[in-house]
Amino acid sequence: MVRRNEIVDLSARLFAANGYAATGIREIGDAAELARGALYYYIDSKESLLGEIHNRVMDPLLDQTRNIVGLKASATTRLRLISEVLLTQIIEHQDHVWVFLHEYRSLTGERRTTFKRKRDEFENLISDVLSAGVESHEFQIDDLRLTMLAFLGMHNYTYQWIHGASAVDPVKLSKLYCDIFLAGIAAGSPGDGV
Amino acid sequence: MVRRNEIVDLSARLFAANGYAATGIREIGDAAELARGALYYYIDSKESLLGEIHNRVMDPLLDQTRNIVGLKASATTRLRLISEVLLTQIIEHQDHVWVFLHEYRSLTGERRTTFKRKRDEFENLISDVLSAGVESHEFQIDDLRLTMLAFLGMHNYTYQWIHGASAVDPVKLSKLYCDIFLAGIAAGSPGDGV
Repeated sequence: MVRRNEIVDLSARLFAANGYAATGIREIGDAAELARGALYYYIDSKESLLGEIHNRVMDPLLDQTRNIVGLKASATTRLRLISEVLLTQIIEHQDHVWVFLHEYRSLTGERRTTFKRKRDEFENLISDVLSAGVESHEFQIDDLRLTMLAFLGMHNYTYQWIHGASAVDPVKLSKLYCDIFLAGIAAGSPGDGV
Repeated sequence: MVRRNEIVDLSARLFAANGYAATGIREIGDAAELARGALYYYIDSKESLLGEIHNRVMDPLLDQTRNIVGLKASATTRLRLISEVLLTQIIEHQDHVWVFLHEYRSLTGERRTTFKRKRDEFENLISDVLSAGVESHEFQIDDLRLTMLAFLGMHNYTYQWIHGASAVDPVKLSKLYCDIFLAGIAAGSPGDGV
């Protein structure tokens, strides 16, 4: 399915540059050098491309994150690893992330449900690691969900300023984010009352 | 100019719900209960509305942030104050923030320049406070720009999950973010090598 992945990637590029609503199937066909009939051999609809753009980032991210969460390693180490794989996806698939963070509301029915299920699973995996870190006295956390969202926000927002920026190393950026975040939630940290 | 602000706010609602490209001047006129001619008495163009949506959040935010940065207070306190005013804007103007973070690339010419200038000024004000905190030995920061972007990301990304979420108190959320972030950049924090 190499050809199919190519079509998904070039759709992400077109949607990111010109918007999902403003990009027609014809422009995708032109960019893929495929006639309409041939294009429909690979894809069902414009909306299915939007779903695939999401899956192309989310599926490997979820696979890797499930593996990381299952490691016999400290919560601290596992959170650093999740940070690295997340930032790598964001930086290597800037167009895909731009598109699905902006256009996910255009997904309907089953595709919308799948999108929400995968996003929820990813959020829950992060919450699990945060929770494990509280159990092991690595972390001190008052509100698990908001802390997970703070972690996610710091990472995900990268898509806004990375777009078109010069090359950023996901490993270095991950270390910077995690140094701040992990010190911020460390048990016995000077956080409260500062 | 109350009527004008009303039109800006209802445009933000329509653009957030249906997208900037997909929303016509006619729909804005219908929602404002104004005929086309009367609407053009208040606005120049659809793009001018996009610029005004941005200004309606950014101008009060910049005013307040300039005042905060000028206070004779610790960098820690000033960063907490900036966090509060930023989250208050994000939570009270969810539609506006949704629209300009997604659609700012539709601004052209002078409006685009103004948008970039205001965004840069806001980022520089945050960097100034971070820098002051390093001077005063409150903070330990290796990369000022990336640390500023980490702070901004944690806050700005709130627009993604707050949309339609039940009421969140900006002051409480700001405390949670700042407790993490300030402990994370505190001089002598356990951050490095955790």
